[in-house]
Amino acid sequence: MSLPVLLNHLKQSAALGQVAGLLEWDQEAIMPVRGAEQRAEQSGTLAAVIHARNADPRIPEWIDSIDRDDLSAFDRRNIDEAQRAYDQATKIPSRLAEESAKAASEGQRAWAAARAAKNFSQFVPALKRNIALKREEASCLAGPDMDHYDALLDQFEPGARAQELLPLLESLRPSLVALREKIAGKAAPEPLSGHFPATAQMDLARKIAARIGYDFEAGRIDTVVHPFCSGSGSDVRITTRTDEADPLNCLYSTVHEVGHALYAQGAPDPFLPAADYCSMGVHESQSRFWENQVGRSRAFADWLHPAMDEAFGGLNIASPDGLYAAVNRVETGFIRTEADEVHYNLHILLRFELERELISGALEVDDLEEAWNTRFERDFGLTVPDASLGVLQDVHWSLGLFGYFPTYSLGNIYSACLDKAMLATLPDREAMIRSAETQPILDWLRERIHSRGRVIPAPELIEQATGEAPSAEPLVSYLEAKFSTLYDL
Amino acid sequence: MSLPVLLNHLKQSAALGQVAGLLEWDQEAIMPVRGAEQRAEQSGTLAAVIHARNADPRIPEWIDSIDRDDLSAFDRRNIDEAQRAYDQATKIPSRLAEESAKAASEGQRAWAAARAAKNFSQFVPALKRNIALKREEASCLAGPDMDHYDALLDQFEPGARAQELLPLLESLRPSLVALREKIAGKAAPEPLSGHFPATAQMDLARKIAARIGYDFEAGRIDTVVHPFCSGSGSDVRITTRTDEADPLNCLYSTVHEVGHALYAQGAPDPFLPAADYCSMGVHESQSRFWENQVGRSRAFADWLHPAMDEAFGGLNIASPDGLYAAVNRVETGFIRTEADEVHYNLHILLRFELERELISGALEVDDLEEAWNTRFERDFGLTVPDASLGVLQDVHWSLGLFGYFPTYSLGNIYSACLDKAMLATLPDREAMIRSAETQPILDWLRERIHSRGRVIPAPELIEQATGEAPSAEPLVSYLEAKFSTLYDL
Repeated sequence: MSLPVLLNHLKQSAALGQVAGLLEWDQEAIMPVRGAEQRAEQSGTLAAVIHARNADPRIPEWIDSIDRDDLSAFDRRNIDEAQRAYDQATKIPSRLAEESAKAASEGQRAWAAARAAKNFSQFVPALKRNIALKREEASCLAGPDMDHYDALLDQFEPGARAQELLPLLESLRPSLVALREKIAGKAAPEPLSGHFPATAQMDLARKIAARIGYDFEAGRIDTVVHPFCSGSGSDVRITTRTDEADPLNCLYSTVHEVGHALYAQGAPDPFLPAADYCSMGVHESQSRFWENQVGRSRAFADWLHPAMDEAFGGLNIASPDGLYAAVNRVETGFIRTEADEVHYNLHILLRFELERELISGALEVDDLEEAWNTRFERDFGLTVPDASLGVLQDVHWSLGLFGYFPTYSLGNIYSACLDKAMLATLPDREAMIRSAETQPILDWLRERIHSRGRVIPAPELIEQATGEAPSAEPLVSYLEAKFSTLYDL
Repeated sequence: MSLPVLLNHLKQSAALGQVAGLLEWDQEAIMPVRGAEQRAEQSGTLAAVIHARNADPRIPEWIDSIDRDDLSAFDRRNIDEAQRAYDQATKIPSRLAEESAKAASEGQRAWAAARAAKNFSQFVPALKRNIALKREEASCLAGPDMDHYDALLDQFEPGARAQELLPLLESLRPSLVALREKIAGKAAPEPLSGHFPATAQMDLARKIAARIGYDFEAGRIDTVVHPFCSGSGSDVRITTRTDEADPLNCLYSTVHEVGHALYAQGAPDPFLPAADYCSMGVHESQSRFWENQVGRSRAFADWLHPAMDEAFGGLNIASPDGLYAAVNRVETGFIRTEADEVHYNLHILLRFELERELISGALEVDDLEEAWNTRFERDFGLTVPDASLGVLQDVHWSLGLFGYFPTYSLGNIYSACLDKAMLATLPDREAMIRSAETQPILDWLRERIHSRGRVIPAPELIEQATGEAPSAEPLVSYLEAKFSTLYDL
């Protein structure tokens, strides 16, 4: 009797969580500017309602009374997730939760001001406070075998431990640095240039989204400053942005968010936690797979070049080969979000390294800017000119998001693992991409990833989907092959 | 100590109520079509949360412990509203609330099918069920001096009683019928005709909305099938629709909803119940005032004619006089929502009469269609050709909305009372309208209506605003003067 009661409780909490997500989407995408203050009250009140539901003292009683032996793995996972949410809600004192929320909001403001002033020291007090609060939160949450950083990481990548991620992620560095250095001596391909009207960009973005399987009857696309994907099940909304000098920003940001959205639209249940996404790393693998393995492939250029030519009434680049080179231009730059596939993970490795040291105390906040600049030069061969192009470029730490960065690289690693396995089982995949008839690719991901929810941990999910334990090898091979051809290495 | 606790509870409940309103707005205006099922779960769960808050057993304890003597009228009203919401939440058994919600949803479906089939008998079982449930609900809510109908009316027009409304509303009938008959013999003015692109309509609608004071930083306009206004305080969203053969539909529906929105944007507090709108009748007085007394005035035609001429690149009507006549065309028709100012209240009187008899049992549902048709012919001089143009035209009863219709006519009566008083205190009002510089008009309404919330009952609010007890006389005088000139009576 207790299982249906527990599941119904979880379902209703998830429904309220979706409402909270809609409030955020609305605020970012379409809310009138003056609505912010009222919205804060609405979101805050709803968050308190959800927190109280997650901390409902009947939850451990229900769980205790359920006999797990006869249950499916799916329902056992639902119970574990209820316990996880209960622990999260009850182990962190409400005083700490409130202080953290306040520190995040104030931290973001301090960060924005410091970034505008290119002055790291302005951000130091807020960052110190965030780190102290996150350590305290980690102390509340950490299991017996967990250090502080792992307790934070676990919130985004359930079950992951820094000591296990470290060799996986670090194994990327030498290959990426070598690849970067080899490319540095080569001539860059011709970039796309011209004027690209925003409406034409959005029309094409919608066309691409529909072709790769985004269900517009279960979603919509709006424009925002920082694109994201929101929602689940039959209401998954994505956002993008347009820059009339650069249509690739809009198109690839759309494909990236569609990758997230396809995962969310393919969830086996819109409300139960065991049906939710497996981990942030797996979520990112879906967005990166469609963005890079599909969208930046040579085959897709065969479809995209005529489509762009038609949408914009001509292009300065004459052929699919030229477009393929243009969308894969490698350039060493300071900004993570503008990085190409060769550089992207080097940016993440830097942050992963620094944030572990910040949380452990091995690195003091006062020394962070210098540490950033020294290690950036080590990995990228460039001197950081100011903090806005360096340590102050990302919003994450200002919001107290520690343990989030490595999930980006996990996503890239997982997407390459999936790509390798898919090529072996879908031999005519390139032809599908060439004509943008990608339903079998989506079906492949639906079966192996989307339909599986979070019943098993991410590494097992990837292993079951690909037949191999996840490793960095497929990503390194993919990048070396792709860029050796592109840059004639 | 209890008052701040109670007020904080009310504030948070109101914030959640705003979230529920946003979910509805989103569903009507922009939600992906397949999102309906998930949305039902979200809205249902949130409604249960709000219901539980309204029925919180601590509310009567808090209220009992507050010494009302030292409180402001505003705070006494907050307490009364908390009591009112508590009574509403606790007096109606949850079984009845659930059945009513189900009956409303099924009733609406049955009504839509019956209307499409022009077959009233198809709707009879659902309507009988709605009436039975509404009587039961009324029994739960009715105070000692209240009959069933009054208990329902009271939910929309707090404090109103049918026996008091009756003479007020019925006094309209002879004048309106006489006016209708006099106009019937006259030549109709030239109607607007042509093709009016939807984008040009929306551009002009936004321009008009901004000119009459709608704050776009605290709101937005979208298009829907059935326009409405939603939200409060700094986030009040309106909706409209476009018909490329008839721009007046979009423009006047926008002005109407802006009238509602100005009231909501002018509320003295976005969360406290005593700051909320006074009654549905007062709300409708605001929309009708801007739609009719301003928007359909001769003075406004001086601004609107050149504005439309520019927006649509020419009009078939050559002068402001001609436009004034066209936007005030009187035509006896079957449909309430398409009715002109002369006929509109006759439609309401018919419904007010019938729904009182339905609730009291004086009229059986089986006899409703015949009663409708007979009385329609009495008031309008026309034979109803089929039920879709008669008894099945409105959605209200299918949703269980009884006691709502009279608030439309109250709104018309109140708007004419305000108009009369305003003319006496703002002698240069016509010049303001002629140039669409209407800030002093909005200020007048802000001071006398918007800023006053629901601290005193609607009739007192109107009396304090105008210096006279509300009566139908200003409306009758306004209509007779206006249409005598227009139709040379």
